[in-house]
Amino acid sequence: MKIRIKLEYDGSDYSGWQLQIGQDSIQARLEAALDRIFSRQVRVHGAGRTDAGVHALGQVASFDLPRDFQPDELKRAMNALLPPDIAIIEASAVSNDFDPRRDARLRAYEYRVLNRDRRSAFDYRYAWLVPSPLNLEAMNEAARRFIGEHDFTSFRSLGSEETTTLRRVYMSEWQCDGDRFCYRVEASSFMRHMVRTMVATMVEAGRGRLAPERVTALIQARDRSLAPASAPPAGLFLIEVRY
Amino acid sequence: MKIRIKLEYDGSDYSGWQLQIGQDSIQARLEAALDRIFSRQVRVHGAGRTDAGVHALGQVASFDLPRDFQPDELKRAMNALLPPDIAIIEASAVSNDFDPRRDARLRAYEYRVLNRDRRSAFDYRYAWLVPSPLNLEAMNEAARRFIGEHDFTSFRSLGSEETTTLRRVYMSEWQCDGDRFCYRVEASSFMRHMVRTMVATMVEAGRGRLAPERVTALIQARDRSLAPASAPPAGLFLIEVRY
Repeated sequence: MKIRIKLEYDGSDYSGWQLQIGQDSIQARLEAALDRIFSRQVRVHGAGRTDAGVHALGQVASFDLPRDFQPDELKRAMNALLPPDIAIIEASAVSNDFDPRRDARLRAYEYRVLNRDRRSAFDYRYAWLVPSPLNLEAMNEAARRFIGEHDFTSFRSLGSEETTTLRRVYMSEWQCDGDRFCYRVEASSFMRHMVRTMVATMVEAGRGRLAPERVTALIQARDRSLAPASAPPAGLFLIEVRY
Repeated sequence: MKIRIKLEYDGSDYSGWQLQIGQDSIQARLEAALDRIFSRQVRVHGAGRTDAGVHALGQVASFDLPRDFQPDELKRAMNALLPPDIAIIEASAVSNDFDPRRDARLRAYEYRVLNRDRRSAFDYRYAWLVPSPLNLEAMNEAARRFIGEHDFTSFRSLGSEETTTLRRVYMSEWQCDGDRFCYRVEASSFMRHMVRTMVATMVEAGRGRLAPERVTALIQARDRSLAPASAPPAGLFLIEVRY
């Protein structure tokens, strides 16, 4: 029997999703909780590997059950054992061939920018502080150019080794509420640092330092060195994984 | 020359406002920043002593300047030296007889409650999770009974030694947005644990375990043992100090 969980976490104090020796990861915390419940090692597989400092409101993961356990009881037991900054939202039984990464049809991320001079004692964990004035229209002009199927080589982390660099973006849009800018992007899947490099590029457009039309040329160039350094991890949230 | 600062802080990782040997307090961090700027000890006086885990969006404090310094430059220098969860919002010159505690006419606090079953990986630092259904009308009926001048002995921390236990409450009101409840209270001043004990009492009313009218009798009894244990610190924010 296989269990699928949906979970949220504040990634501020973790080295990211993935297990790494000597580091405190979300995966390690989940496996530690399961180890205490089942007294044996249970390997947890996630839908996506969020980086250090990146948050999730709707990460999905799955694991094989070593013995019978009601999903809802398991959710409660895990929540009782997990630290307060990781919370299981749902747990359900799935078929044994469920693969949270390969079966995902769509991922949605949000990126939050605080557009003001003064830093915040609260939002520094959850937003990128950009003091220069931002032009929402220019950012949305840039954002629209990401929609569709493109080769995202220019926006992925150097050193990644994906079999394909083609990705289909379904939605790419900024909204603004006072000094808070929020970007939402939905795609078939993302490569490492892809959202954060797209965000940094659009913020350059918002600051008037890059013409929004340049995004198309940047995509076509397939050259990571042409796009700006990626935006900081704290503003990024994995919102949803759809199957 | 005396400087008045307005500041915000996430109190989650601090032992509270006040300097305590071997503890990490907001006051200690401010004094450490000033020590680095002026190479000497500068004593900081706050408008109110928030407890461990309590936050501030508008705490006020003051200190004597050891030598000339533009308030705005001082603000920038302090923000550069302070940890990210403490931020100076404003700094201005005030007269030498300014006393942030005694001169304050009014303090405003907010208390946030998350009214749902499921814990949050984000709000556990900033809200009290109350899973039982809450009746907003009952909470506001209870809240209104605090307005006016009363002896708040029943709601202060045992062992406090104020010269007077009379306090004047100007505003006391709950608002609700979905599963988020927010209480705002304004008074001449507050005693230790007073807001959190008032909140715990009103939440009892909201859960139907205490008739809202009982608040008047609780106030009149002047007996701390009759009111419930105080609500947790994480939900409490010092919003404003008015002069």
